[in-house]
Amino acid sequence: MSVSTGARGLAGANHEQAHPEPARYEDAVLGFRNHWYPAMFSSDIRETEIKTLKLLGEDILLKRVDGHVYAVRDECLHRGFQFSAKPECFTKNTITCWFHGFTYSFKDGSLVGIPSDPESKLIGKLKLHSYPVEEHKGMLFVFVGDLNPPPPLADDLQPGFLDEDRYIVPFHQEEVASNWRIAADSASEFNHTFIHKEDDLIHYWRQPLPFAETPRSDNPYEGFTLHEGPGPKGFTDSFTDVIPVFEFKIECDDEVEVVRSAYNPMTEQGSLSVQAIDATLTLPCGLRIGPWGANPGDPASADYVQYEWYVPVDETHHRYIIAWAKKVSSEVEALKVEHDVRTRWSYIAYDGFNASDVRANEGSQRAYSEDGYEFGEKENLSRIDAYVLTWRRLAAKHNRGLQVRYGGKK
Amino acid sequence: MSVSTGARGLAGANHEQAHPEPARYEDAVLGFRNHWYPAMFSSDIRETEIKTLKLLGEDILLKRVDGHVYAVRDECLHRGFQFSAKPECFTKNTITCWFHGFTYSFKDGSLVGIPSDPESKLIGKLKLHSYPVEEHKGMLFVFVGDLNPPPPLADDLQPGFLDEDRYIVPFHQEEVASNWRIAADSASEFNHTFIHKEDDLIHYWRQPLPFAETPRSDNPYEGFTLHEGPGPKGFTDSFTDVIPVFEFKIECDDEVEVVRSAYNPMTEQGSLSVQAIDATLTLPCGLRIGPWGANPGDPASADYVQYEWYVPVDETHHRYIIAWAKKVSSEVEALKVEHDVRTRWSYIAYDGFNASDVRANEGSQRAYSEDGYEFGEKENLSRIDAYVLTWRRLAAKHNRGLQVRYGGKK
Amino acid sequence: MSVSTGARGLAGANHEQAHPEPARYEDAVLGFRNHWYPAMFSSDIRETEIKTLKLLGEDILLKRVDGHVYAVRDECLHRGFQFSAKPECFTKNTITCWFHGFTYSFKDGSLVGIPSDPESKLIGKLKLHSYPVEEHKGMLFVFVGDLNPPPPLADDLQPGFLDEDRYIVPFHQEEVASNWRIAADSASEFNHTFIHKEDDLIHYWRQPLPFAETPRSDNPYEGFTLHEGPGPKGFTDSFTDVIPVFEFKIECDDEVEVVRSAYNPMTEQGSLSVQAIDATLTLPCGLRIGPWGANPGDPASADYVQYEWYVPVDETHHRYIIAWAKKVSSEVEALKVEHDVRTRWSYIAYDGFNASDVRANEGSQRAYSEDGYEFGEKENLSRIDAYVLTWRRLAAKHNRGLQVRYGGKK
Repeated sequence: MSVSTGARGLAGANHEQAHPEPARYEDAVLGFRNHWYPAMFSSDIRETEIKTLKLLGEDILLKRVDGHVYAVRDECLHRGFQFSAKPECFTKNTITCWFHGFTYSFKDGSLVGIPSDPESKLIGKLKLHSYPVEEHKGMLFVFVGDLNPPPPLADDLQPGFLDEDRYIVPFHQEEVASNWRIAADSASEFNHTFIHKEDDLIHYWRQPLPFAETPRSDNPYEGFTLHEGPGPKGFTDSFTDVIPVFEFKIECDDEVEVVRSAYNPMTEQGSLSVQAIDATLTLPCGLRIGPWGANPGDPASADYVQYEWYVPVDETHHRYIIAWAKKVSSEVEALKVEHDVRTRWSYIAYDGFNASDVRANEGSQRAYSEDGYEFGEKENLSRIDAYVLTWRRLAAKHNRGLQVRYGGKK
Repeated sequence: MSVSTGARGLAGANHEQAHPEPARYEDAVLGFRNHWYPAMFSSDIRETEIKTLKLLGEDILLKRVDGHVYAVRDECLHRGFQFSAKPECFTKNTITCWFHGFTYSFKDGSLVGIPSDPESKLIGKLKLHSYPVEEHKGMLFVFVGDLNPPPPLADDLQPGFLDEDRYIVPFHQEEVASNWRIAADSASEFNHTFIHKEDDLIHYWRQPLPFAETPRSDNPYEGFTLHEGPGPKGFTDSFTDVIPVFEFKIECDDEVEVVRSAYNPMTEQGSLSVQAIDATLTLPCGLRIGPWGANPGDPASADYVQYEWYVPVDETHHRYIIAWAKKVSSEVEALKVEHDVRTRWSYIAYDGFNASDVRANEGSQRAYSEDGYEFGEKENLSRIDAYVLTWRRLAAKHNRGLQVRYGGKK
Repeated sequence: MSVSTGARGLAGANHEQAHPEPARYEDAVLGFRNHWYPAMFSSDIRETEIKTLKLLGEDILLKRVDGHVYAVRDECLHRGFQFSAKPECFTKNTITCWFHGFTYSFKDGSLVGIPSDPESKLIGKLKLHSYPVEEHKGMLFVFVGDLNPPPPLADDLQPGFLDEDRYIVPFHQEEVASNWRIAADSASEFNHTFIHKEDDLIHYWRQPLPFAETPRSDNPYEGFTLHEGPGPKGFTDSFTDVIPVFEFKIECDDEVEVVRSAYNPMTEQGSLSVQAIDATLTLPCGLRIGPWGANPGDPASADYVQYEWYVPVDETHHRYIIAWAKKVSSEVEALKVEHDVRTRWSYIAYDGFNASDVRANEGSQRAYSEDGYEFGEKENLSRIDAYVLTWRRLAAKHNRGLQVRYGGKK
């Protein structure tokens, strides 16, 4: 494995590691380094356009050139001026620092010229950190790390995403005020579904959705499958292997109340069977969950799958990205999926369901920011939190290294 | 003394101490633990209503149930979700965490149910920190600490407040941008009255008010009484035992100027006698001062007493609470007091007098936040600041422990 | 050398040092102590007026008395109240703390009275830090330090500023969101002129201005003169001794583009000779650059000189002050200069030129605040940055000490 991206130029420390040490989950406040992350949607950056983005605490400058998007660190190696404060591109493939004219190739970050010193030995040697970028299914993926070449994108994606017959409609991006791990932890376990018990999506669907689950036996790990072989790492939770909980009986001071999820199939409220839903959480931070029904009240139409990501932005924010996917066999079918998701499901799915996840994740950040709820500290996990612990253990075992602040400062 | 409030649940450290070590005044940036503090007014929280409040850096959730107000920490023991981000109460006496459904008794904080694990051994054992609450005279008092049972409220209140024939009208609550000790220090000494020398209240009253005092002898402690026996701890300063200062002569570079307080009885400006006013400052942070005149220009009507508190909120804010009190012997008299204070005195007392205290306290915070004016450091105390030193010494001697941040973080 | 300003009063530490140790440039985040700094313009403070200002992290209170401006620390020595929160001056030369009435001489900071303790031994002994102030050419200069007497102002000023026949028009003051050293570094080298390549001033002037320079020989230090003898310390860069760069050829991926400065004399675009311009940078933070042409397109009219300063405010801000100067021999000439600069050049010079410097300096702050671009760390300096290194070395050698936060806190 050879060095070529030249992180921080010649003068900086070399980040490249052939076999980076996996980071502890507790330490990964800025995420795991050396992974692919979804950055934005293809439609967010047009030909010739320049955009900026913060990923894992790093400021990145992107430009689309002849269809391909390139990405470099948004900071000149000379004196640190941020290119995006006034970007100058005199040729298609270059970014020139507005301050002193240091000019870099957008493609690989190499320094191609200095106005005051055209013969400088730094030219051709100094390299701005450049980020590998791949674009698939209407989404841009950026590799944040030092491995060269980077591992395959497919190893960092949820299963099926890249399948040829899978049509993807990415429709939501939002900066959420919580650390990415709060969201990933929540995605790893089913019991947070308590927050969805009255969500509009459930009503609209007329579809039973339990708000908790209990293991069928003493083994809380029953019903989930680890993925530790080649390809993406993570685990799948099959909801059919656990006992769905639709009712919660509260007794306190001689008062008794029963909390029910909308469309409980055990009562006359609902009359539909519970669908078989799987959730697969994979490193670094992506979930696939489904299938969902396309038609309200019709479980046979359950052929949508939801993909989502909790991309680390900084210590207290992540970017929440959602896409829906469906297998299609023709352009016409694809167009129908595009239409249905963009004009109907995107609103119902987010406003009527995932907005609750955002609220839950943001409502937990204070405990981590101020009150020392570090992972494993202060928490009081219950039996079913075995899922969270499994996710943390898998993540800690299979990640490709710790992300640290570029300058060691915030 | 037994443990029952179970601070931080089973998993947390046990705060309970039979004989908590008194804290140094310099360290008490968040106040003194194990004391009663006024939290809000009775009228602020109606039957069934939920409110939140920060006291001494702790986030507290309050609810009124069958007339009584209960208070628990506003943070689930499971994963730290703050209940108040979306409170759910399915029965009168419970608070259910919206995230995963962990349900606690509002009365004592005990965990009464988990949807996904109804047989969990944590149920009935895990306890959310619950705060003892008492309600008197239209005000709510919360005990922030670990002593169980807590000491009597009366031990943490200024004298007379709970007397049966004392009618109390609480009328002002405000978050002030200064540490609570700046306000308490100021309340401990008379000389800050310099700020009131032209305040509207003085003009309205036509009542002499000195802007400083000097001891009658070489003993600066003359004229004040310590309260170190049973009951509330603190001291009383009797203004009749000192020499009131109504004039301050400034000489500099051959210029001479005399600064005068409004209604100086030594000049023709004022023609009224100085009233006998006492100020009693008690732990943890309460002042009683008075009596004040009810009728402008009529010292014989001096039968109002002002109570006020400087309740620690966080490192740089305190809650300033004001109430007026008067002895009454009938409902009719009480109604007249209520009317007069709410429709007249509350405005004159705050806008025309205590607003100056707020300005003085906020104007001193910068020195403490940025410039290292720690207590005893950098200050240049004068002879009459013996009062401040006495307050600090008494506070350091009689408090019931140091308040520290729950998670050790801000 | 005797103590007289009595920094921090009797109770504080004594800052006074006969031979203060020069500070490292890397450490001088708040600037160099024991130097004169421009504070504001004469017209900013009228007779009897009180103003506040933050210099090098210190909060300063200024007042004009009988024409002369006096300056003291804006913080009472008693309990730290900031005078400016409610200033009271009962005599011409005094400032009285609104909180407890401690009264100080504005002229030398000495405590002249305490209302509650008129016989206090502190009176006449305690001294508020007072800042020497000088006023010349419509500008106020404040000495931030402990040397008494302070060194001559002329030692901290760019050459010629105080000359009798030099008429000065100070016209711009702005708080810029970057550390002062980013601005001073930039002022030390010519190559940042790349930012001005299309600025309106160049177009208006019809005057060639290169956007970089290269040394005439292998010696990058050729063409500049050190000033290390008596008087102000710094260096002069004579642009006539280097090769001006008007064109920058970019080659990348078989594309070639040439970037040109406006009015390149090597092309038909411009037809005028390059003027001889000198830039002199002196400690602590002042630049003189010029001469500039007064009449567009007429190099013979090059008789204006620009003075500017990058005065440290706090860790991430400096005050950018600009003045133009011209030699005059009569009142009539002076009036014409005043008119021309105020009604024309001030707009063109700032909006059409120096606003770019502000943008460049602010665009570099993030690298220093967040990414560890400490001076000498992470930077990749080129050959021509020899000027920057020279400035840093001179500054580190000749400064009179490190400025530290008054309370050691931010």
